[in-house]
Amino acid sequence: MATTTTRRIALAARPVGEPRASDFRTEQTELPALRDGDVLLRIVYLSLDPYMRGRMSTARSYAQPMEIGDTMVGGTVAQVVESRARSLAVGDYVLSYSGWQTHAVAPARLLRKLDPRLAPLSTALGVLGMPGFTAYVGLKEIGKPLAGETLVVAAASGPVGATVGQLAKIRHARIVGIAGGAEKCRYLVDELNFDEAIDHRAADFAAQLEDACPRGIDVYFENVGGAVWSAVLPLLNDFARIPVCGLVAQYNATDVPAGPDRMPGLMREILSRHLTLRGFIQSDFAHLQRDFEREMSVWLQAGRIRYREDIVDGLDHAPEAFIGLLRGKNFGKLIVRVADE
Amino acid sequence: MATTTTRRIALAARPVGEPRASDFRTEQTELPALRDGDVLLRIVYLSLDPYMRGRMSTARSYAQPMEIGDTMVGGTVAQVVESRARSLAVGDYVLSYSGWQTHAVAPARLLRKLDPRLAPLSTALGVLGMPGFTAYVGLKEIGKPLAGETLVVAAASGPVGATVGQLAKIRHARIVGIAGGAEKCRYLVDELNFDEAIDHRAADFAAQLEDACPRGIDVYFENVGGAVWSAVLPLLNDFARIPVCGLVAQYNATDVPAGPDRMPGLMREILSRHLTLRGFIQSDFAHLQRDFEREMSVWLQAGRIRYREDIVDGLDHAPEAFIGLLRGKNFGKLIVRVADE
Repeated sequence: MATTTTRRIALAARPVGEPRASDFRTEQTELPALRDGDVLLRIVYLSLDPYMRGRMSTARSYAQPMEIGDTMVGGTVAQVVESRARSLAVGDYVLSYSGWQTHAVAPARLLRKLDPRLAPLSTALGVLGMPGFTAYVGLKEIGKPLAGETLVVAAASGPVGATVGQLAKIRHARIVGIAGGAEKCRYLVDELNFDEAIDHRAADFAAQLEDACPRGIDVYFENVGGAVWSAVLPLLNDFARIPVCGLVAQYNATDVPAGPDRMPGLMREILSRHLTLRGFIQSDFAHLQRDFEREMSVWLQAGRIRYREDIVDGLDHAPEAFIGLLRGKNFGKLIVRVADE
Repeated sequence: MATTTTRRIALAARPVGEPRASDFRTEQTELPALRDGDVLLRIVYLSLDPYMRGRMSTARSYAQPMEIGDTMVGGTVAQVVESRARSLAVGDYVLSYSGWQTHAVAPARLLRKLDPRLAPLSTALGVLGMPGFTAYVGLKEIGKPLAGETLVVAAASGPVGATVGQLAKIRHARIVGIAGGAEKCRYLVDELNFDEAIDHRAADFAAQLEDACPRGIDVYFENVGGAVWSAVLPLLNDFARIPVCGLVAQYNATDVPAGPDRMPGLMREILSRHLTLRGFIQSDFAHLQRDFEREMSVWLQAGRIRYREDIVDGLDHAPEAFIGLLRGKNFGKLIVRVADE
């Protein structure tokens, strides 16, 4: 007899600034009964991603905020333990959006079946999932790096940044990655074949970035904002493209930023340098999902795209791991192993 | 015997803030001798445009700054008075970039012959020239208004703004124009068929703009910046497009804008509302010039695009007219009649 309860982590309070442990609440709740077409899921992997910080607040974001008491949202890999849907059998693995919990009931039509023989299951949350697709569409539709152009990406050892850099390398661009700490920087150059890597914690970070981009910057894949963006802006070339997919350095901000007001200057740079800034999330380009899966699978198997995962064991550690993610403590795609495969 | 001198207006000093009469200098100078392929031109019309303010300063812009002593730049319509080029005969009219002067020597290959029977000669500087082409490419390549969407354009009685609004109307968008003063606003609604017109000088301008855009703003054609942009930003819909082709309200700015710093907030809006901001000048889309001429001629002859010119007589009045242009004093495309046709 399968379980009829789930242990879940809910939003207990809206964080002010950096989230704290007390903003989360763990509880045991009843699952709804299965209806025709539903399956009962046992969550195996939970993805932790910066966008979740936005969902915890009421500030306008690209998605509706969670309500207090809601299960924390998130992508998951899960196994079917009971099925009332013809398309899924007990034992099947699926990609679901079940959030921070151990079990869930979901309609089978919202789930994507995964084949564990094609790729490790956890990659459905990383390089073959939402972060990989974000990198893919942001480059293909907005960044469009050309051979010989310089691309800069921050959070470069994370799942989006690492994929951006490697995809742009396939297009023969020059890649400068920004990451926190010497170990991540070494990884970018030694393992991922980035041309340069710069530690954003260095006192002379802006000068290092300028040195690393002697021909300016043609594509800046924006996923952090803050001080990195400030250092990038003066280096942008005419006709530079800036896909804006995240601003993790700003998500915990509480103060109104002090002056001077740099917005008029930014507008002037957009005009005089013919810049393109475009905000997006991956679902804006859902029509490219099949192209992505086909191309990325080939590149992965050929070893042209590599990935790194940072796996944390146990749902109870999700809040701490998430708080660390916003501080840049993870090294690679952050995943919580909720249960063994 | 044709003249061998020109009376020209040169840049005497770089303006600090608003240009003053003393920033310009009128002088008589010798013209170079004609070489094979050259023509001697008698300037008939001189175009005055906001971009010239940028060329007077050393601040980074989309073109090289003029040097002190250079003839003020500008598009002109001129007549050939002497020719050493087979392609042009005495009496022909041409579009040239001869600047603020009465005569010029130019290679015929840089000139475009105009047919005075097809359209009034002055339109080559306005609706059929650079401002019209700016409106055309900014909408076609960046703004892309759809039927039923709301487009907002400022400086709307000027040659770019008026054409933007009418072109978007042809695409069945809802058009809200912003202009300075009741007379210009009436013109937009009564003559150009804009859906709404708002006076940016009104104390409750931002509230009026919000009332005029009950379904938000899908396209904002940015040619002024400053307070209008600040009022537009909160009203932008998801996936709004902002072609950035001018910031005339900021061109004379001298102070560093006081805080708070609104740049981080702008980046957040770009992300969360999937905005596209793209700076351009018309020459970025030179490949569309023929399409523009063909389509715009048809619309003009059919009366679907109308235009208004503000003609000032005499080269000596150019500095004063230009200073007025930056204050929004002109009503329609500002042109100096340097000599009779």
